[in-house]
Parts: sequence; structure tokens; C-alpha cells
Amino acid sequence: MELGDISTLKTSGGDSILLLVLDGLGGLPRETGGPTELEAARTPNFDALAQAGDLGLHLPVGRGITPGSGPGHLSLFGYDPLQYRIGRGVLEALGVEFDLQPGDVAIRGNLCSVDDRGLIVDRRAGRISTEDAIPVCAALDRIEVTGARVFVQCVKEHRVLIVVRPDEASGASIADTDPGRAGFEPRPVCAIDPDSEPAALAIREWMEGIPGVFADGDQANMVLLRGFSQLPDWPGFPDVFGLRSLAIAAYPMYRGVARLVGMDAISVPEGPEHLVVALETEGAERDFAFLHVKAPDKAGEDGDFDRKVAAIEEVDAVVPDLLAAFPGVWLVTGDHSTPATMKAHSWHAVPFLISGGHGRGESAGAEFGERACHQGSLGLLRGCDLMSLAMARAGRLSKFGA
Amino acid sequence: MELGDISTLKTSGGDSILLLVLDGLGGLPRETGGPTELEAARTPNFDALAQAGDLGLHLPVGRGITPGSGPGHLSLFGYDPLQYRIGRGVLEALGVEFDLQPGDVAIRGNLCSVDDRGLIVDRRAGRISTEDAIPVCAALDRIEVTGARVFVQCVKEHRVLIVVRPDEASGASIADTDPGRAGFEPRPVCAIDPDSEPAALAIREWMEGIPGVFADGDQANMVLLRGFSQLPDWPGFPDVFGLRSLAIAAYPMYRGVARLVGMDAISVPEGPEHLVVALETEGAERDFAFLHVKAPDKAGEDGDFDRKVAAIEEVDAVVPDLLAAFPGVWLVTGDHSTPATMKAHSWHAVPFLISGGHGRGESAGAEFGERACHQGSLGLLRGCDLMSLAMARAGRLSKFGA
Repeated sequence: MELGDISTLKTSGGDSILLLVLDGLGGLPRETGGPTELEAARTPNFDALAQAGDLGLHLPVGRGITPGSGPGHLSLFGYDPLQYRIGRGVLEALGVEFDLQPGDVAIRGNLCSVDDRGLIVDRRAGRISTEDAIPVCAALDRIEVTGARVFVQCVKEHRVLIVVRPDEASGASIADTDPGRAGFEPRPVCAIDPDSEPAALAIREWMEGIPGVFADGDQANMVLLRGFSQLPDWPGFPDVFGLRSLAIAAYPMYRGVARLVGMDAISVPEGPEHLVVALETEGAERDFAFLHVKAPDKAGEDGDFDRKVAAIEEVDAVVPDLLAAFPGVWLVTGDHSTPATMKAHSWHAVPFLISGGHGRGESAGAEFGERACHQGSLGLLRGCDLMSLAMARAGRLSKFGA
Repeated sequence: MELGDISTLKTSGGDSILLLVLDGLGGLPRETGGPTELEAARTPNFDALAQAGDLGLHLPVGRGITPGSGPGHLSLFGYDPLQYRIGRGVLEALGVEFDLQPGDVAIRGNLCSVDDRGLIVDRRAGRISTEDAIPVCAALDRIEVTGARVFVQCVKEHRVLIVVRPDEASGASIADTDPGRAGFEPRPVCAIDPDSEPAALAIREWMEGIPGVFADGDQANMVLLRGFSQLPDWPGFPDVFGLRSLAIAAYPMYRGVARLVGMDAISVPEGPEHLVVALETEGAERDFAFLHVKAPDKAGEDGDFDRKVAAIEEVDAVVPDLLAAFPGVWLVTGDHSTPATMKAHSWHAVPFLISGGHGRGESAGAEFGERACHQGSLGLLRGCDLMSLAMARAGRLSKFGA
């Protein structure tokens, strides 16, 4: 079902919907036959929701595909990530909460090192520290060009965000300058279509200013550019689903993706208790709340099985308070799996529970975990179909056809 | 698989296929952990078919999407309802068995009330009774226009069917005149493309005749129009699947949808015993029979769990006679769920059984019901894939590729 079709079915009323994302929730057993992180976690509140609701597994992107954070969340928001693609530059901008404007061209940059012939020696400038990269970015940010403003912001270590704001309207169809390996010159800045020439011109002029910024022997002395992109013109989440929507997250990336689809977003300190306070104070007059918890993913990335278990249990502990603040249809899941045994995002299907509204229900004693979700009454589905399911249970979708 | 692809694989021989639709078959437990309507029903004959065959669940349209009767049946006939869409006007025509011709423009109308400034007071004319609406429609039917015949037929209460049969070929791309709420004037009749101007002209002239039909103080004194549509030009079911096909149904809507895809259709009185007689007398020389039973849906819509159970049991009782009259591959399912607890169509996956031909089979003791179907050997699939499965089991599809 396309977003446009769903939009034609939405009704004006219905229950509230809460989307609680435990980042990287899905996991793997530490030893064959053993429990996953979620199965090992004591989660009496999630288990109670599971028994009153329905379980299943979702694939954020597709079979065997490991999702990044952007596509993983877009999918949960109902946007098929194969159809709705976020450019790399825009993703970097969201991650540092840069106030990207329509028409801005956002670019992912790498600080790098070139030799005196201009050939790339190190694509990451010897993994320059963030501390050293910040003044470099400040100097790059001061380069002036005609007909545009070029912003440069350090993201982390060699990773930088560049944003071109041209006076004249411009597209962002510009080829990557990063050749992808050392021993070559950076490629020239080439607009792929004439509409993107204004931004390409500004970037070329900016690149000409770079040598003046660096001194002999600097660790970083050039910038490689890729992922030229602009804010997409997508149907807005509040319009498509008819939901007054709020995102609550400690990390800018997740607020950024939420804002990208038109949600309001507020920042909170890390820790599930802060979600409760934010939801109590800001949740009124909202039909939809997206809460993001980063800790399970971080523990998974660190390969710390037990800390991931503990992070899940900490979220479970605040469920009664969250339920009191925001009852209705609840969807609890992850944006992807991050098994501690793999220390990385993975492609494995992600467990979810959905409660509230009408469902077939699970057998008594069901617990929220990968195996129970595999047996669950909702089966395996695409992540981008979860919002339709939540909308249906909230009584917010009318019949398709008569 | 698209219809065009399936068509290239069909063979000239094979077993017969019976599609038995218990309208609104899928249900929900009355209390947590309890049986659904189908699970509560004693269905020894369906259970025997299930044990000799295979079980699964199907989604008629998509996740979270509640199907109307038209899309629900199209899906069972193998037509993806997201691709093959029936206009609202055509659906109304099917429902009253109007003999719609290619080129006719069918319209769903609402009898409504406007005040002396022409502003809508009630979009449904105070829910006018069918008895009162019939003479109103007869008067509207007598309005003469140049270059076209305009038919008006009462459907039920304020719901009317209008069919324009223009002398000159015309499209049906005409904007709804129903503004969707009171306090506004009906919108003008506007063709969206020039090809639709002949029908739009005729409708405009017909609308000008409306005031002459009504007297001061009439409950209904205007008509709102929407869903301008024409008979679609789709591949025909008998051609696509190579099946001499017959529909048997008590309600015109279901005969209408069957005829829309090119099946022959005959009318029977309500009650499963009449299906037996019709199948015995009319089933010979047929490769495919679609039998429609309305009672489970009506009981579900009325919120009568026990009556829905009884309605299912009544169909089960005639299974031996139906089998004797029409052996072969059997597909028993619903066009959507209608849980008595919801008193409405719903989005929940619909149980099906398929028997005859080759299958993996179910474990001993399997009974036809939602939980057994969830565990069933065929899993969860799209409704529009069921016909391919039935064709395969009937030995009617050749290999794809060599």
C-alpha cells in the first residue's frame, strides 16, 4: 500500500498511537539454543502487553539487508526505504541537527591528505581527531564564495558536513569527487544536469580557496565530497496519517529523521525516565508519539550482551508510567537488529509487539522475544506496513472500496 | 505474478476448481484466549477437508487494510485490488444489477436537502426512507436531456445510482460534485479531461432539470454525485485462467463482480441448500464455480457471534452434497473478516483451506480455524495469489521457464 492510498483512507478520529523504538532491539543467542538479549531480559511489562496484544517480526528494508538508522526509522514511520531515499549529505545534516533549508545542498565530506602533486595519500587524513578537525572546519567555513554561502561543520574525526546555500535556485545532481581510494586526484566538481550548475560553481570556487587555508605539513589538506543531496519533498507524516505527531529523542539523528517527515521533535537527556517526563508534559494534544531509546544499540555495537539486556530491562521498568501518560495503541520494536555477538547492525528480522484495539491475541504465557514473535499471530511483515496496522487498530482507517 | 504471466502458463486440461466464499468468514475471539466464530463452529466436513488439504491465512488487500466487498472478491478471483480498481459508480450499478454497457458512465448519487440559497442542509436528505426515495428517483429518471439517456435508480434510502448513456463516446473523468459536508453548494459538474465532456454536458443539463421535479418542502430536493466511472477493460477471468466459470450467489453485488470479470452468474435464493441444487443443475460443463454465502457476514455485522457460528455450521452441513456435485480442488475462505465483536468488516487476515491435488498437508487433528490456519502449511499470503495455488493443485499450470 502506497502512502497516497493510505492517506485517502484515514479518518478524522481514533485512538492515540505510541511508537516506542528500542534502537537495535533484535539480537542473536550468545550460544546455540540460548536466549537472545530480549529473551534474556526480564520484561514483565512488555510481556503483559504482548499477552494482551499481538506479536510478529518485521524486516525494515528487505531480506538480508542491514538497515542504517535513517532507513530503519523511515520504515517504522511507514515510508518504504527502497522508495524514499535520504541522500548521504542530508543524513549527515540531520545527525548534527544542522538547520537545513529547502534548496540547500548538503554534502558528506572527508578531511583527507594529498601529496604535493595533489594525489590522495590518506582518505581520512590519518584518522584526524575531532579536536584537531574542529579548527580545520572553522577555517574551511570562513572561505567566501560569490553567489552562495558554504557552511562547514565537523561531525566527528575526519567526517564533515558541507552545506551550500546558493543565492540562485540549484539542484544537487553533482558527481562525488571522492575517487574512493588513495593514489588518485580528487575528481573535479561536475554538475550532472544544468539545473545543478549554480551549486557546482559555488563548490568549485570554495575548493579553490582550500589550499589557502592549510599550511605545509598539515595532517589534513584537502576535502573529498560525496552524497550531494537536498531535503526531499515527501508527503508529510502528519498529513498522510492525520496524526498530530511528536518525536522525543536524546540523539539529533532521530529527531532529524522525524522532522524530515514533518513531525515535531523535542530533545531529552538520555535515560528512559526522561521520556516519561517529556511525554507527560508534551504528550497532551498529540495523536502520535515516537520515543527513541539509543542504549540497546550502543550496548550491541559494543558487543556487551549483558548491558544490552540491562538497557532493555530499564525501558521495561518505565512502561507503566509511559502507559499512564499515553494510553492507546502501542507499537514496541526496534529499527533494526544489533546483536551483541556481531557488534554491528544486522539484517535479522526485528521483534515487535502491538497492543490496543482489536487483535487475535497470543496464547497465554507469551513473552516478548524473537522466538515468541516468530510464532506470533501477525507473522513476518515489512517494517513499512506496521503503521497501517497501528492505524487500523487505532480505528483510524476506513474501508478500501465498498 | 501478474495475470498476464499466469495466462501464459495455463494448460488446456485439469481438475475443476470450486471457490466457496463464506462472506466475512474471519473473526476474533469474544474473550481473550477464547475461540473465534469459525473456531467455535462445529465443522466436521471442513475439518476433514483441512486434514486432507492445507491451511493458511490471506490478506485480501494489505496489512491493516479493511476490504470492501468488491476488492475482497476481486482478490479471490486473482485480481490485485490495488491494481484493479472498481469505481464507486460501477460498484453501485453491480449492486442493483443494472445492465451497464461499455461507454456508460455510472455515478453514485446521494439524495440531499438544500436550502433556498442552494446550500446543503443534509447530505442524506434526513436519511429518507427507501419507500419515499423510489418515487423521487422515478421522477429524476424521467428528466430528458439532449444527446444522452440518464437513468436513475434507487439503491437504498438516500443512495441512488445514476447512469449516463451518451450518444457520443465519452470518458468518465468528472470531478465529484459532493463537497463532503453541509453548508456548501454542490460543486459544479466539471470534466477533468476533454474526452469526458459529452457525459459532463449531459449531467449538467440533467441537473438543470432537477428543480422542476421537486416541490417546496420536499425532504430531498437535490442530488450529490461522486465516483463517476465506467466498466473497466480488464483481462477476463475465463480467458486468463482458461476456466469455463460460473458464479452462484443470492445477492446481486457478488454476481455483479463475477460478471465484471467475465464469469457467467446465476441467482439463487438465500440458504446453502440452494447452492447445492444450483450446482447440481448448472455445474456440468464448468471448470470453475464460485459460490457465495452472505449469512456469516450479516451475522458479524449485526454483532451476533452465535448466529455467525450457526451460519458457518449450516454451510458445513451441505459440504458432502456440494462435493458430490463438484469434486476437484476446493478453496474455502472469506473475502475479508467480519468479527462479531467489531460489527464491521476488518483488516484481520482471513483463514482459508485448500484441498485436492498435491499438498504437504496438515498435522492430524487440524481443524479449520484462525489459529490452525496461522500454523498452516501455506502460511500468510496475498488473497490474489490464491487462484495460482488452486490452478497449480488442479494441474492447470505449466512450468515457468524450461
